[in-house]
Amino acid sequence: MAAAGAEAKEPENHHNNCLVQLSNPHVATMKEDILYHFNLSTSTHDFPAMFGDVKFVCVGGSPSRMNTFIRHVAAELGLNHPGDEYPNICAGTDRYAMYKVGPVLSVSHGMGIPSIAIMLHELIKMLYHARCSNVTIIRIGTSGGIGLEPGSVVITRQAVDACFKPEFEQIVLGKRVVRNTDMDEQLVQELMQCSSDLNEFTTVVGNTMCTLDFYEGQGRLDGAICSYTEKDKQAYLQAAHAAGIRNIEMESSVFAAMCSACGLRAAVVCVTFLDRLQGDQITSPHDVLAEYQQRPQRLVSYFIKKSLGKV
Amino acid sequence: MAAAGAEAKEPENHHNNCLVQLSNPHVATMKEDILYHFNLSTSTHDFPAMFGDVKFVCVGGSPSRMNTFIRHVAAELGLNHPGDEYPNICAGTDRYAMYKVGPVLSVSHGMGIPSIAIMLHELIKMLYHARCSNVTIIRIGTSGGIGLEPGSVVITRQAVDACFKPEFEQIVLGKRVVRNTDMDEQLVQELMQCSSDLNEFTTVVGNTMCTLDFYEGQGRLDGAICSYTEKDKQAYLQAAHAAGIRNIEMESSVFAAMCSACGLRAAVVCVTFLDRLQGDQITSPHDVLAEYQQRPQRLVSYFIKKSLGKV
Repeated sequence: MAAAGAEAKEPENHHNNCLVQLSNPHVATMKEDILYHFNLSTSTHDFPAMFGDVKFVCVGGSPSRMNTFIRHVAAELGLNHPGDEYPNICAGTDRYAMYKVGPVLSVSHGMGIPSIAIMLHELIKMLYHARCSNVTIIRIGTSGGIGLEPGSVVITRQAVDACFKPEFEQIVLGKRVVRNTDMDEQLVQELMQCSSDLNEFTTVVGNTMCTLDFYEGQGRLDGAICSYTEKDKQAYLQAAHAAGIRNIEMESSVFAAMCSACGLRAAVVCVTFLDRLQGDQITSPHDVLAEYQQRPQRLVSYFIKKSLGKV
Repeated sequence: MAAAGAEAKEPENHHNNCLVQLSNPHVATMKEDILYHFNLSTSTHDFPAMFGDVKFVCVGGSPSRMNTFIRHVAAELGLNHPGDEYPNICAGTDRYAMYKVGPVLSVSHGMGIPSIAIMLHELIKMLYHARCSNVTIIRIGTSGGIGLEPGSVVITRQAVDACFKPEFEQIVLGKRVVRNTDMDEQLVQELMQCSSDLNEFTTVVGNTMCTLDFYEGQGRLDGAICSYTEKDKQAYLQAAHAAGIRNIEMESSVFAAMCSACGLRAAVVCVTFLDRLQGDQITSPHDVLAEYQQRPQRLVSYFIKKSLGKV
C-alpha cells in the first residue's frame, strides 16, 4: 500500500486506499503550511475534518461555472436541501473559488498554465494534509475544436504542446525540465462509456493541444498582434488535426503532469465553442454557449453518480 | 504623426498624439470584433464613446484590488461624487473586471503570462477601436522581493525570464518567436521622482524576473513538487540578485513585449510581500499585506494626478 510519506515516491497504479502524495520531502517538515492563494492554513483550518472525505475534485476556469457545477452535482447526487447555499471556502481571497458537497470538491483555476499550476500546488497539498485517498480529479473546461461541430465534447487522450509533443516543459532553477502528460487511459474509457449512457451530445476521445496564448499561440488572426496569413494558420491547424489533435485549450499539459506526479487519477473533459478551421471569433449566442458549457458538467456529474453506485 | 492604420507599423517614440496601434493588419478588415473575454463587441458597444478619453490604464491581478484602485484614484483626482458606484464594465463575464473614472481605466488580469496576455490582446484592440491616443499603461502588482525589506516597491527597469534574459519567448505556429521586454526609461524616472515626492515607502528601480510558475518556477521549497535543496535555491536566488533582479512576479515580460509592440508607454510597479532570501511562505498578517498592496496604488495615482497637473 502507498503511504503519504515525506519522500517523493512513485504513486501506486491501482487505487485501493491510494493516499494523495507530494513529490516534495520538505513539506512534511513544515510546522505550518499557508496555502496563500486559497487563504487557508494548516494552523487555522482543520483540513482532515474539512476535506478528508473528498473523492472527486472538479476544476474549471471560471468561478461562477464552478459554483453552478456544485449545485448541479448536489442535485444529481440527492445531497441538496432547500435553501442550501454552498459558501465559497476561499471567500477570503478573489484568486480562486472553492465549493464542496459530500465527496465532491469544485475549484476554479483561472486561465492558463501558471494560474492552474498555482491552484494545483495548493490543492494537492491541501488533499495531502487532509489525508485524502482514492481521489479522481477532472478538469471540466471550454476549448476551441478542430474539425468538430461546435458543442462537441472532447475527452483528452494525451495533452500536447504547441509543437504537438506530449510534454510539459518548465524552467526550474534556470534549467529546462520536461515532464510527461499522460492521462489515465481507464478513466478516459469510463468517461466515454458515461457519454454513451447519457447519449445527449457528441463526445470524442482525442489529443488536446495546450498553449500559452489564446491568440498568436493558437494561430488566431484576430489578436492585437499577428504576423502570419490565413494560409499559414490553416496549414498549422491541419497539421494539428493530422497529429490527432481535436481541441485547443490552455491548462491540460500542466494539469496532466502535476496530477501524474502526485498519484491523482486525472482526466480532461472540454466542450468546443467553435471549429477553428471555420474561424477565430466565438460568435454563438450567449444561451447556446451556456448550454455547451453545461455538457462537461452533465457528463462528469453522471460519472460521479455512477462511480458512487447511484445510477 | 502616427496613424491608426491597418498596417503593422513601428510605434512613434514621442507621444504627441500617438494613437494606439495594432501589430495586426487583419483586424481593420473585420466587420465586427468580439472581445470575448471582456463580453464587449464593436457591434454592441460604442467604443469611442465609452473609452475614447482614456489616457491611463492600470492593470493588476485581482479584481477586488482593481475596484479599490478606481475608488482611490477617483478620490485623488476629485472625480468622485457621493454614492458613485463604478460598475464593472465587464459584468457579463467573470474572466476579468474593468472600471473607469475620467481618463483612468482599471482592469484585472488574473495570474500568469497567458491570463494577462488574453486581457492585453483584447484591451489593446479595445483602445484601438476607441481611437485612444497618448495612453500610458502601468501594471500595479504584488511580487516576491530579493534582498529587499518586505513592503518595498520595485519599478521594473527590465523584465527578464527565469534564465535572467531580457526576452519573452513564445511559440507561434509551432515556431519559437523571441520579443524584447524593454520598458520606457523616461517613465521609470518619472515614477521614481513621484516616489521621492511622496516619501512614504522604500522604492527601488531593478530588474524583475517573470516566471511561469509560483513554486518550482521561483525556486520555492514549499510546493507540491520540489526536487532541489535549500542550498540550490539560495544559489539560484543569489545569482538572480547578482543579475540585478530585485523582485519576481508572473506577468511583466509579456506585458512589456506586447505594450512595446503596440506603441503603449508601459511600466511595472510591484510591491514585495516577502524577501525570498529569508523564506518562501507569505506569513505577514492580512492587514500588513493589505497596506503593502496599497503602495503601488498610491504611487501610481499620485503619478496620474501629477501628469494631469493636479499636484
